[in-house]
Amino acid sequence: MYYNYPPSLNELIQQLAKLPGIGPKSAQRLAFHLLRTNEENAMGLADAIANARNSIGYCHICGNLTDSDVCQVCLDNQRDQTIICVVEQARDVICMERSRSFNGLYHVLQGAISPMDGIGPDKLNIEPLLDRLKQGTVTEVVMATNPNVEGEATALFLAKKIKPLSIRVTRIAHGLPVGSDLEYADEATLSHALSGRQEIF
Amino acid sequence: MYYNYPPSLNELIQQLAKLPGIGPKSAQRLAFHLLRTNEENAMGLADAIANARNSIGYCHICGNLTDSDVCQVCLDNQRDQTIICVVEQARDVICMERSRSFNGLYHVLQGAISPMDGIGPDKLNIEPLLDRLKQGTVTEVVMATNPNVEGEATALFLAKKIKPLSIRVTRIAHGLPVGSDLEYADEATLSHALSGRQEIF
Repeated sequence: MYYNYPPSLNELIQQLAKLPGIGPKSAQRLAFHLLRTNEENAMGLADAIANARNSIGYCHICGNLTDSDVCQVCLDNQRDQTIICVVEQARDVICMERSRSFNGLYHVLQGAISPMDGIGPDKLNIEPLLDRLKQGTVTEVVMATNPNVEGEATALFLAKKIKPLSIRVTRIAHGLPVGSDLEYADEATLSHALSGRQEIF
Repeated sequence: MYYNYPPSLNELIQQLAKLPGIGPKSAQRLAFHLLRTNEENAMGLADAIANARNSIGYCHICGNLTDSDVCQVCLDNQRDQTIICVVEQARDVICMERSRSFNGLYHVLQGAISPMDGIGPDKLNIEPLLDRLKQGTVTEVVMATNPNVEGEATALFLAKKIKPLSIRVTRIAHGLPVGSDLEYADEATLSHALSGRQEIF
């Protein structure tokens, strides 16, 4: 009879292999690392998973991730309450925050309209956005959905819904990334960069 | 003031980023996956880590991973008690088992001699191996350390230690991998394949 790993090690390998982008070989390597590393690192990860699962939920106002009822951005009175930036995912909020160029509020859709994946507008966090806008404080909505087919469709769909409320709807600019090279830009990006050109003085 | 993730999510990302081969971006992706996936998958991983850490240790006889005092291979009386295969890591035991070609016992060194990394013979599981051999049951030791500088040095070092006990010491064959192509073999492998040639009939 030939042997395999002890059951609890096998279980650990199988659980790790369920993670996205982790194949059986990587799972095995990670499992051995978790056995070999010090107690603090290994149990730190186990506790962090349990802790995050227990404490993190969605903000009741904007749909951002938070460890309380309402997220820190929505709670902050210092931020501009008249402008809302609409993003697809909670991670996009952090991307925007890192740019340090936006001081308004957010709304997280939890995805984008994608008929191919069976995601219609009803599956997104859209109704609460419209409710927020109807309160009358907001004067501008910035669409910061991803610059791909699904993101553009979602931005257009929302723009149509929001226009009747007489609120300004804008879209973040498409163009050449800072530090890139004209030579490597694709046609669609260049076309956007041209049509979105701005006066220098 | 600009915001970051809630503390417990940040902690999870940082713990994941400590894993080998997982950078900050992958850690973020994995953390979001662990938040979004069902409770069973997320807590299954947390529990599997804790469980494996608590139950898995080294076999007192051979140094293999086990969830009891002595590993399953050492406990199996059906296996050939006269031959021991020496490997570097516990994972190598499973590799050998998968080949279904070896029915003896194992000894896991927990590494290979590597002066560059400060690993001398005293840091390896060598003394217990010599103690096992001195009991007189074993007639052959197969060196299955890796076919690299450290593995070869370890095999040679052990062979010199074991020879005085009048025990046969063998080395697994080096040669062309099955299914490969002569064209792609490196010189060292080809040289080994030639010197290790065997009669067909």
